[in-house]
Amino acid sequence: MSNAPLAPGAVIGIIGGGQLGRMLAMAAARLGYQTIILDPAEHAPAAQMANRQIVAAYDDPQALEQLAEYCDVITYEFENVPVAAVEWLEERVPVRPGSKALKVSQDRLLEKAMAAELGAQTALFAAVSNRSELDAAITVTGLPAVLKTTRLGYDGKGQAKIVRPEDADIAFAAMRGQMAVLESFVHFESEVSVIAARGLSGEVRAYDVAENIHRNHILHTSTVPSQLGPQARTEALRIAGLIATHLEYVGVFAVEFFAVRDGDSHRLLVNEMAPRVHNSGHWTEAACTISQFDQHIRAIAGLPLGDAKRHSDCVMENLIGADIDRLPEIAAEPDVLIHLYGKAEARPGRKMGHVTRISPLTTR
Amino acid sequence: MSNAPLAPGAVIGIIGGGQLGRMLAMAAARLGYQTIILDPAEHAPAAQMANRQIVAAYDDPQALEQLAEYCDVITYEFENVPVAAVEWLEERVPVRPGSKALKVSQDRLLEKAMAAELGAQTALFAAVSNRSELDAAITVTGLPAVLKTTRLGYDGKGQAKIVRPEDADIAFAAMRGQMAVLESFVHFESEVSVIAARGLSGEVRAYDVAENIHRNHILHTSTVPSQLGPQARTEALRIAGLIATHLEYVGVFAVEFFAVRDGDSHRLLVNEMAPRVHNSGHWTEAACTISQFDQHIRAIAGLPLGDAKRHSDCVMENLIGADIDRLPEIAAEPDVLIHLYGKAEARPGRKMGHVTRISPLTTR
Repeated sequence: MSNAPLAPGAVIGIIGGGQLGRMLAMAAARLGYQTIILDPAEHAPAAQMANRQIVAAYDDPQALEQLAEYCDVITYEFENVPVAAVEWLEERVPVRPGSKALKVSQDRLLEKAMAAELGAQTALFAAVSNRSELDAAITVTGLPAVLKTTRLGYDGKGQAKIVRPEDADIAFAAMRGQMAVLESFVHFESEVSVIAARGLSGEVRAYDVAENIHRNHILHTSTVPSQLGPQARTEALRIAGLIATHLEYVGVFAVEFFAVRDGDSHRLLVNEMAPRVHNSGHWTEAACTISQFDQHIRAIAGLPLGDAKRHSDCVMENLIGADIDRLPEIAAEPDVLIHLYGKAEARPGRKMGHVTRISPLTTR
Repeated sequence: MSNAPLAPGAVIGIIGGGQLGRMLAMAAARLGYQTIILDPAEHAPAAQMANRQIVAAYDDPQALEQLAEYCDVITYEFENVPVAAVEWLEERVPVRPGSKALKVSQDRLLEKAMAAELGAQTALFAAVSNRSELDAAITVTGLPAVLKTTRLGYDGKGQAKIVRPEDADIAFAAMRGQMAVLESFVHFESEVSVIAARGLSGEVRAYDVAENIHRNHILHTSTVPSQLGPQARTEALRIAGLIATHLEYVGVFAVEFFAVRDGDSHRLLVNEMAPRVHNSGHWTEAACTISQFDQHIRAIAGLPLGDAKRHSDCVMENLIGADIDRLPEIAAEPDVLIHLYGKAEARPGRKMGHVTRISPLTTR
């Protein structure tokens, strides 16, 4: 497999056709590439911006054969793609990032083990595969703690808090027999994330740290710069770099941290990583020359990575459900970039779009 | 016809499917709208980014009926759309900008008459409908002068320079019997343009003046800020505002000027106006929160206009023909936004894409 950059007109396959795939397809088009989306839902948000959508399950053998046949490189927009499908594709066509990052990010235990191996801190944790292991785990983490399925959790799903020992039964039942991990409850001051990219040649570029506020377990705002001091900020970028190199990663990824107050500074605990462009990086589209979407396409196409520096400070806000009705008022605000996802129905909790409010760069 | 903003999901028709239509379709998608492109060429660059393309001539009655039926508002990406087609559509659905601006911009004489009516300066000019009028015209403009067809000229086509009286015959023959206008040759120091927008409510927002360099009659670079002083800059923006109001314009448009050195300052002569987003405004995508494409969609959708201020200085460079082969080198430069148009074949003189190099804002 050559490391020469994809030529204009080459075809990029994107597994998953949600808003992230949509924004990746637009970035690919701006860089002169064609795109094919694989998504089981007809008229997926990404399909409008792609040259073609294959409507099929993510592990549909015929669909995968078509992707392998037509695409010059394949990527994915979410971390719950079946690993077997990516492994099958990898033998036929470059998949960036590959199955290694996917496996780690699909399993909270592997994720935490990787962080520990790289010398990064995490919450105290212990594996829980049966009820008696949960009691043992509580002695490791202390209480309160959070029990999470090791796989397929997102936006607060598959999680149960244990405050007192007597909550353990209900929490364990909520896991429905799935492998789980108990994590000590972290009294964090803030949640922050780093969006970074690793290119085909091994170069790593990281955007500045964003400070994230969640509402109902869904990202509400990302603010850049964060309130972290220079030391904690450097540490966050350093850990992102270690992870990228460890996974031989190609593309954009996100690392989420808990920031715990520690005297004048903050201690950072790795929470999780996402092997893809990330909601907490949407601000890059408005505040940087090279957005996370352009950066991801550059990386997987074998082009040099772009600068990850920003020209402005900003606050990104998600538009959830009926928030989209505020569109005309928002459009009247100064210096706000609006980005909607073309979803027909504004259901409660559904991400309909985001807006990024820009302000002059403060050097700090 | 209501002036309420288009709701997300509404359908915008775009007449013309080139790169401008493509960038408009992306902007429409970001603002939550669907798009239908009308273009006679199959797989037009805009089609990939649109929900649908109608492949038909711009005056095809069935195609126009479909546009009128499916679209909530219609716009166009080039000024040579048949006026009759737009007039037919206007009776059925809002067309923004409408036929008034189209008529003026299709006729160099009407354009110059409008500039004069608004008190703006132009080169000396005279209408030429036959050979003897050309001689009379030369006494008005002096020599050298440029003879141009009043209609359908772009990128230097339909123009002939007259340096000495004996060039007149050849120049007149080059017009092939079309109505023409003779313009005095302007010894300009620079060519500049203003991109501005007028909203449905009448508000006007203008981007700062760009200084444009052409090569082989095709735009090569646009630089912002220009070298104009504050007085000339204000004058350029003022004239753009007058034109917008005079035409009851809705959407983005461009006014190109010749800047003639006048002591410490510059005198501005209106060269031409384009009733559409414009190549010399592509820099707004990289240096402003609201690009000219977003601004045009906001205007025609009845949303409030966005700020036209920029966060960075910049130089936009067109990639013409084989320039696209420099893509990997360009991607390695710091702080450069790359935007290609998805055209399969890089013919000489063909606009394949553009890049915008960003630098920190200088206040001047």
